[in-house]
Formats: sequence, C-alpha cells, structure tokens
Amino acid sequence: MHKLLATDYMALAIAQAQRGGPATYTNPQVGAVLVKAGQVIASGYHQRFGGDHAEVATLKQVTAAMAQGATLYVTLEPCSHFGKTPPCCRRVVAAGIKKVVIGQLDPHPIVAGRGRDYLQQHGVQVETGCLTTQVEALNPHYNWFYRQQRPWITLKAAVTIDGKLNAQAQQRSLISNQASYLDSQQLRSQSQAILIGAHTLAVDDPALTVRLQALAHPPVRLVLATTSQVAVGKQLVKPSDVPTYLLCRQATANDAIVTAAPNVHVLIDDWTPAKISAWCAKQGWQSLLVEGGSQVQAEFVAAGLVDEVILYLAPMLFGGQALPLVQGVATAKPLQFQAPRLTQLGDNVKLQWQRKVDA
Amino acid sequence: MHKLLATDYMALAIAQAQRGGPATYTNPQVGAVLVKAGQVIASGYHQRFGGDHAEVATLKQVTAAMAQGATLYVTLEPCSHFGKTPPCCRRVVAAGIKKVVIGQLDPHPIVAGRGRDYLQQHGVQVETGCLTTQVEALNPHYNWFYRQQRPWITLKAAVTIDGKLNAQAQQRSLISNQASYLDSQQLRSQSQAILIGAHTLAVDDPALTVRLQALAHPPVRLVLATTSQVAVGKQLVKPSDVPTYLLCRQATANDAIVTAAPNVHVLIDDWTPAKISAWCAKQGWQSLLVEGGSQVQAEFVAAGLVDEVILYLAPMLFGGQALPLVQGVATAKPLQFQAPRLTQLGDNVKLQWQRKVDA
Repeated sequence: MHKLLATDYMALAIAQAQRGGPATYTNPQVGAVLVKAGQVIASGYHQRFGGDHAEVATLKQVTAAMAQGATLYVTLEPCSHFGKTPPCCRRVVAAGIKKVVIGQLDPHPIVAGRGRDYLQQHGVQVETGCLTTQVEALNPHYNWFYRQQRPWITLKAAVTIDGKLNAQAQQRSLISNQASYLDSQQLRSQSQAILIGAHTLAVDDPALTVRLQALAHPPVRLVLATTSQVAVGKQLVKPSDVPTYLLCRQATANDAIVTAAPNVHVLIDDWTPAKISAWCAKQGWQSLLVEGGSQVQAEFVAAGLVDEVILYLAPMLFGGQALPLVQGVATAKPLQFQAPRLTQLGDNVKLQWQRKVDA
Repeated sequence: MHKLLATDYMALAIAQAQRGGPATYTNPQVGAVLVKAGQVIASGYHQRFGGDHAEVATLKQVTAAMAQGATLYVTLEPCSHFGKTPPCCRRVVAAGIKKVVIGQLDPHPIVAGRGRDYLQQHGVQVETGCLTTQVEALNPHYNWFYRQQRPWITLKAAVTIDGKLNAQAQQRSLISNQASYLDSQQLRSQSQAILIGAHTLAVDDPALTVRLQALAHPPVRLVLATTSQVAVGKQLVKPSDVPTYLLCRQATANDAIVTAAPNVHVLIDDWTPAKISAWCAKQGWQSLLVEGGSQVQAEFVAAGLVDEVILYLAPMLFGGQALPLVQGVATAKPLQFQAPRLTQLGDNVKLQWQRKVDA
C-alpha cells in the first residue's frame, strides 16, 4: 500500500479549503483532514462566512472515540478566540487530538500564534509550515491584509495592443471577448470592494455587479469623484442590496438626490489612494479592485498602491487619439513587478503581474 | 524500414532552407532534397543572395547518372528566368529529373507558375502544395511583397505594463531586459529597412545597427522628420556601410551637412506611411520595421499600414505622465489582429500579433 506523507494530507486539506470559495468572504478558506493509523477518517472545510470552522466541520464527522489520538492536518492555525464560533483549539484539545499539522500560522492579530501555543500548552504535538506556498495561496488577500494592515489592491483593465481603454475618451468601447468577460466576473467575485472614477461612471454607467453567480457578500461599489453630480440617475445609485459609496471631495445638493436609495452613501473627504486604502482597511475589506479609468489608475500608480495588475489584452489597435490605460498625475519612480502569469483566452490574453516585494 | 512520405522529404527541404537565414536577403530561403528509390541522395539550399539556387546546390552533389530518374523536393517553384543564375527549371529538365514536388509556387511575377509549366511541358511530373503552411512561413515577407506589392510592415516596441515607451517624453528609459534586447536584434536582422521618427532620433540617438552578427545586407535606416535638422551630429549620419535615408518634408541648409557622409541621403517629399511603403517597394525592400516613437506609430496605425505588431512587455508601471506607445493622429476604425504568439523572455513577455486578413 502506498504510504501517504504529511504533504499528501496537507494537499487534501488544501483541496477541501478551496471548496469554500468566495462564500467565506472576509474569513479565510480553510480545510482540514483527520488521520488515524495512516487512514483519512474525516475531512471538512469552512463553507461560509459565519459557518463552522474547518476543524469543527471535520470533528463533527467522527465519534469521540475515533477522534481520540488522531492527527489533524489543517491549512490554517486553529483559532484561539471566541468569535462567531467558540475557539477551535479548545475543541481540538477536548477531542483528544494527539498531533496537529498546521499549514500556516494565522496572521490575524487575534490569533497570531496563540492557537498553536494553546495546543502545545495542552499537550498536543504541533508542527507548522507544511506546503506553505500552496497554503498561503489559498488566502492571498487575507494574509496581506493582516500583515500589511491594508487591502490588496489590484488594477484591472481590458486594453488594446496599444494600451488603450476606449477608442475615444467620451465613448465606451467593447474591447474584451466573452472569455475575458467571464474571467473578469470571476475576478470581481473574489474582491470585496470595486472602485471606479467619475469618468468611467459617466461614460460606462456600469452596475459593477457579479452577474454570473449569486454571492452572499458581493463586492461593495466605490466611486471616486469630485462631487456626486456624476452619479445622478446612474445604475449604481439605484436601490439594491449592494452598498455603494461615493467618495467625493466636495458636498453638493446632489448628495441628497443620489442617497435616496438606502444602500447609497456619500462620504466627503480629500480622498487620496492612501486615504481610500486606509478607509477600506477600517471597513475590514481585504481586497480592492480598481477598474479605472485612466486617471484613477494614474493616482494609484503615483501613490505606489498597486499590488497586482491584471490586463485583458485584446488584438486591436485604437490609434493615436484613443484613451490610454494610465493617464494623469505623474509617477516619480517606476513601480516594478515580477514576471507575469499568462493565460490565453481565445484571441485575448490575460496577464497578471504581482508587485516585486523588494522594489 | 520506415518508409518516408512526401511530407517527410519536404520537411527535410524546409530544414535545409532555414539554413539560409538573413544571408539570402531579398531572395527567398529555399531548400531541396533529391530522392531516388526512397533514399535521400542529396540536399541543398540557397546559401546567400547571388549564390546558387537550392536546386543547383543539390544537383551539384550528384553525378548525372544518379540524378537521372530521381524525384526533387523543393520548397519553392524552380525559377524560369535568367537572373543572377540561369533558370533552375532548365537544369532540372536537363538532369533527367522524373518528378518535382513543389512546396509553394513562386509569387514573384517573373516566375509565378512559369517554372512549373516549363517542367510539365518538358515531361516532368509536377506536384504542388506540399506542407504549404510551413513552406510559406519560410519567407513571409517575400511572399507578402510579391502578392501585395508592398513591404510587410511590423510595428515594434518595448513597453511597460501601462503601454509606455518612456517615463518622460524627453528622456530615454531602459525598459526591456537582456533577453528581449537579443531577440529584438534578431528581429532587426530579419528586416530590410528600419524606420524611426524625429523624436526618437532626438531622444535616443540610436545606431539602428544589428550588433550581434555580421550581415552582408544589414537593414537600411530610415528617419521620418520634418527637416534634417534633428539628424545633425547624430550616429545615423556618420560615415558607415549602412545607407541612411532622411525622409524630410522640407529642404533646409542642414541637408548638405547631414549628407556629408556618402551613405546618407535626404529625400524631400510630403511623406505619408503610404508614400513610404510605396517607395520602399520601389527599392525592393520586402520588410519595414517601424521602431517608433509614438507619433510615427500613430501615423502607420491611422493609415492602416500595420501587418504585425511585436511588443516586448516589461514588468513596470511608468504612470500618468509617461509617453504612450501610440499617440498622435487619430485612427478612424480600430485595426483588428489575430490571437498573439506569446514568448516568455525572463520577466519580459514578447507578444506578436498578425493582422486579421479579412479585417
């Protein structure tokens, strides 16, 4: 019989974790498997925000006798605090688990090693750091958020070969193909907030919704604008279950008009990318998808607040008067990224660059 | 014993043809193999501009008795005219070749089926159209030139993620990595003319030479400018073996200064991309590599004279005041391209798009 290794069990736990998907919302995707005498006797995952943690979902599947003396493989450190559910590490100790193998420690300050410590202090053997890269990739935004105290910021756009957003500044152009459209909807479903600028609102009048799947926690919609005038009569200010925040620099009489719907709010401040990022962090949003247009993107580039760029590149040339992807405020020093990940989507190409950490 | 098929012999002829490389200059790359009783008894290729054609190079390797009754596989239709060498189809007939398998007919109007006809009229069996796609790919510029009566025009640039050529308009930026640089030198070696605009000449002062290999026929250098003033003191107007043409819209006293070197010429006309293309065609140049900057590229896009775009994409963002890849004159209708070919070059990506033929 083929003997499974610790990394095999962790890979199974990762596969469990991935079943959670966007439903875990600001909670991490976590998976677990319970192993006794070399046999997987149970597995589970965190299914949705507010639901059972992976450890509990797993332990629920076995009798007390079965759990006694077993080894638990879990992608993330068991929690040590009373939150929406009681702390998992107490449950693990109470179940008589002999050993816990942890994929990564929880960067959330409320846990941050306390789960591991509790287990060790109560006689449970603990190993940490199994398949770390793959485990970390389950929750890149969550990890980033608690380590950097700000959301992971992604600039996303569909552009032509010549790096243009629109054939003309005042006109919306259809650029990406159906495969890119579907992929970008997926991208939205993995984001907790989406930001556009006033120009994009005026020209595109987008709904910024995720149209392909029902999400319990769809991304909130943010607009950066001088005043709320640009939003009058637009789709984003219609009554809906999805909150819309108009981040305006000046209050006007239009504020009362656009906030007629209970889900729409106007916030007046001298908004900068740094202020937006800090405000999103305060709301607990771990990821911000900046969907343009050029001027908003130029502001985030200038502020150095770009952790990832995702482009859907369409096989067209728009020419010398078309609207560039990034145009507006100057950037003092180029931002450096790592080698991109490439995905061919029909005649489009998806390119994803993550920021160089040391740059 | 494994029996080779006609396509196998043609594949061998293609491999022969590729050995010619840029040395064949405006002549096509052509390869041939001679087969008798299922055995390859000779092979050859067109080695250099003015040298033996592939058929002759191949037939020279065998005795008259060996050639008698053999089958010749040749990537391009044997020529029918007295050029730098006597017509190959006469030589083939004289050698007693029984059958000729031709990869593609020669689009050159001086041949264009006459070689095939001559062979057939003299009792040689002829088959045409073997591995056509691969055979055509040996000489894309040559084929295009004789079918369209103009050069194949490639727009080439090294750009950032945000589609910028330079961090600032008046300053040269280092964008691409060493692998991209080497590849772009290779690209130059496959071109017969390179064009830049006045702004690129002023800011970059490029030599536009192929620095990695000695070429018998390096690409000529073209500059599109209002007057020749921008070229005074620049590398391009130094005495050299490589011709430089300054395509100016107005004559000035600087013309005499910059044409001091015998290889430098000033041509005054109301130059447009269409005029440049037609003039290159008259010179017999089958390929034109447009290396920018933004305004020259905008003119070629607006004129619809872009057959291919090659970008070296570097993992940086330059921001809102940087110089876009294409900027200037407007384009009435977007140009459409096919799905790109992608090559990862370290942290850079090379993207190649060819024009959609029906667009």
